[in-house]
Amino acid sequence: MFTVSVRDHFMIAHSFEGQVFGPAQKLHGATYVVDAEFRRAELDPDNIVVDIGRATDALRAVLAALNFRNLDDDPAFRGRNTTTEFLAFVIYERIAAKIAAGELGPHARGLTSLRVTLHESHVAWAAYEGQLGP
Amino acid sequence: MFTVSVRDHFMIAHSFEGQVFGPAQKLHGATYVVDAEFRRAELDPDNIVVDIGRATDALRAVLAALNFRNLDDDPAFRGRNTTTEFLAFVIYERIAAKIAAGELGPHARGLTSLRVTLHESHVAWAAYEGQLGP
Amino acid sequence: MFTVSVRDHFMIAHSFEGQVFGPAQKLHGATYVVDAEFRRAELDPDNIVVDIGRATDALRAVLAALNFRNLDDDPAFRGRNTTTEFLAFVIYERIAAKIAAGELGPHARGLTSLRVTLHESHVAWAAYEGQLGP
Amino acid sequence: MFTVSVRDHFMIAHSFEGQVFGPAQKLHGATYVVDAEFRRAELDPDNIVVDIGRATDALRAVLAALNFRNLDDDPAFRGRNTTTEFLAFVIYERIAAKIAAGELGPHARGLTSLRVTLHESHVAWAAYEGQLGP
Amino acid sequence: MFTVSVRDHFMIAHSFEGQVFGPAQKLHGATYVVDAEFRRAELDPDNIVVDIGRATDALRAVLAALNFRNLDDDPAFRGRNTTTEFLAFVIYERIAAKIAAGELGPHARGLTSLRVTLHESHVAWAAYEGQLGP
Amino acid sequence: MFTVSVRDHFMIAHSFEGQVFGPAQKLHGATYVVDAEFRRAELDPDNIVVDIGRATDALRAVLAALNFRNLDDDPAFRGRNTTTEFLAFVIYERIAAKIAAGELGPHARGLTSLRVTLHESHVAWAAYEGQLGP
Repeated sequence: MFTVSVRDHFMIAHSFEGQVFGPAQKLHGATYVVDAEFRRAELDPDNIVVDIGRATDALRAVLAALNFRNLDDDPAFRGRNTTTEFLAFVIYERIAAKIAAGELGPHARGLTSLRVTLHESHVAWAAYEGQLGP
Repeated sequence: MFTVSVRDHFMIAHSFEGQVFGPAQKLHGATYVVDAEFRRAELDPDNIVVDIGRATDALRAVLAALNFRNLDDDPAFRGRNTTTEFLAFVIYERIAAKIAAGELGPHARGLTSLRVTLHESHVAWAAYEGQLGP
Repeated sequence: MFTVSVRDHFMIAHSFEGQVFGPAQKLHGATYVVDAEFRRAELDPDNIVVDIGRATDALRAVLAALNFRNLDDDPAFRGRNTTTEFLAFVIYERIAAKIAAGELGPHARGLTSLRVTLHESHVAWAAYEGQLGP
Repeated sequence: MFTVSVRDHFMIAHSFEGQVFGPAQKLHGATYVVDAEFRRAELDPDNIVVDIGRATDALRAVLAALNFRNLDDDPAFRGRNTTTEFLAFVIYERIAAKIAAGELGPHARGLTSLRVTLHESHVAWAAYEGQLGP
Repeated sequence: MFTVSVRDHFMIAHSFEGQVFGPAQKLHGATYVVDAEFRRAELDPDNIVVDIGRATDALRAVLAALNFRNLDDDPAFRGRNTTTEFLAFVIYERIAAKIAAGELGPHARGLTSLRVTLHESHVAWAAYEGQLGP
Repeated sequence: MFTVSVRDHFMIAHSFEGQVFGPAQKLHGATYVVDAEFRRAELDPDNIVVDIGRATDALRAVLAALNFRNLDDDPAFRGRNTTTEFLAFVIYERIAAKIAAGELGPHARGLTSLRVTLHESHVAWAAYEGQLGP
């Protein structure tokens, strides 16, 4: 298996509902440093996993829609706790949609899975990984 | 698959038996920076993999039993080389026992696997990953 | 010159006033990973710069007063932009006050300066350093 | 599963062919920080995954054959783009050959897979992982 | 003293002249991860050291003029070894010129010094720091 | 001011005397990741701060004399707590002696200061910096 990973970040405010979250039930915030790992079984004709320029742009575009926001106000997340692991899934879904739409180039349809990791501090991070393709 | 990871560390003395270890056969020591990665297929009702506060406490408790010790004196390790990879397994087993005992909360029984990584320097690390649950 | 540094973190929401801040004028948030570097010319009688346990506790206590908060609601910061560099100064002042009050032990009065660095992402950080003592 | 990882680096010049590479079609270069992760199901009789000294030597030897070179001049890569993901595969193959040849010791034949990761910057990396053994 | 730092990177080919460089006399290359630390005694009226957006843009523009190049072909470096420490100085000079030209905003003229660090691998880096202003 | 830094590590056992050390009074150990930063005002005729090969060798030689040891048994440290900050000073002195003896090359006598940093974990480090030369 071959992989290529790119890193970017975004900065948001949010709060959580549920006693399990303790003081994080109050409005606070986070910087998420995000790694997107693209995977496939064989390299494409250019000897690459994915066009790293387009992969970087896709990640940036997905994060731009979240960056400098209070996620409590985002209708997409109504009634859901925007935990680190859940946000990893959201970003996975949005990048996967771009791949399916051809935004990462025609060869990117050969990608088989994607892992998205969000680092919330030097001592905690979370990830979602899932399949890609038809 | 969803994951949540937390990091902590411990500092121990030990020595190894066997020519393969060269100068590490003498009494020396290490700082181990430890990452525990908790995994499950679906998020729990709070939209989380595990209560990160309890996960952090469990890791700290397991490391506290090893920290500031000479592992050569620990009866639990008699006749075993306390290599980085073996210690990763020991820590996996001890965290897994806490999960099974309910110490990470009732939803933590939905965790499916656990990976424990020990960083012994900026150029070497080791890990054990194994299944969880019944 | 001798130094000892310890690291911790906090997570807050805030917004900025002023066109220079662009989209950061909206309510958003950040994780700040904080390094406190304690400095002195000579080691104390225990051969240390500072009791690292007390230094860690002092940093944690200062950050706990900021953690899981919306800084826009904190009267201490009314009318001030809580930029990364300004927060570094605030944390410097609060740790310096603890040193002056003897909370880091009697020998800590021999500390000569303190540098506080706040990492807001993998590509941006800010610091304040200033003198300590009479 | 148990793993042991070691890190080293090499520094090369190269250029790429294909419009997808944009400005990287010109002669440029890279530092690659390389992680080799060795994996097996059970520890060997010394309680290790692999002799870390021999693993480190094997990685260094493989990288030495690439280090301080212009890869465009290397006959082994004629007609191939020496992308990060492709170089990860090349290094995987060369380490795997050393394992098969017994250079990592007799117990290393119990290794089941190998993952090689090349970090090309703080925001991009690539990997290849494949099976080992008969 | 207050500081703000931003990070970016560039990738180049080059070779060195002089026996001290050993195998690095051959054409090879490097990724340089670059940190630019801006310093001043007091914050500006917006409570900042420098407009971080403009600082990021200035660093990117300076690195873009070097990125994806063979530095041996650059007339600006004829007869000079483009060592890591020398490149740190070159980047310092070019950012300093932008500050003097007002490209980082009018308040940036209050900056007093600048440190530029180039990381060439996980085990080696170099820096230049110098004064700014009239 | 120009600087060049190199990184290596060593692994030791030791214990401390004094109530301030709490559980670290027991025999334990540490990995120290060590950064040596060499400084000078102007580059030498090769456009470098110091021959990085010789600097790396000097650091390795100094650490080899400490590596895989129980520092409690080292006569050089009798009656002294081998704290992180004290070890930084010891390593500074030993590298400085090599520079004075010409082991880093004749131009290395132009070095003006040296900073040695020891990282004992992901959340704690210590340093000593001092002058060099006649």
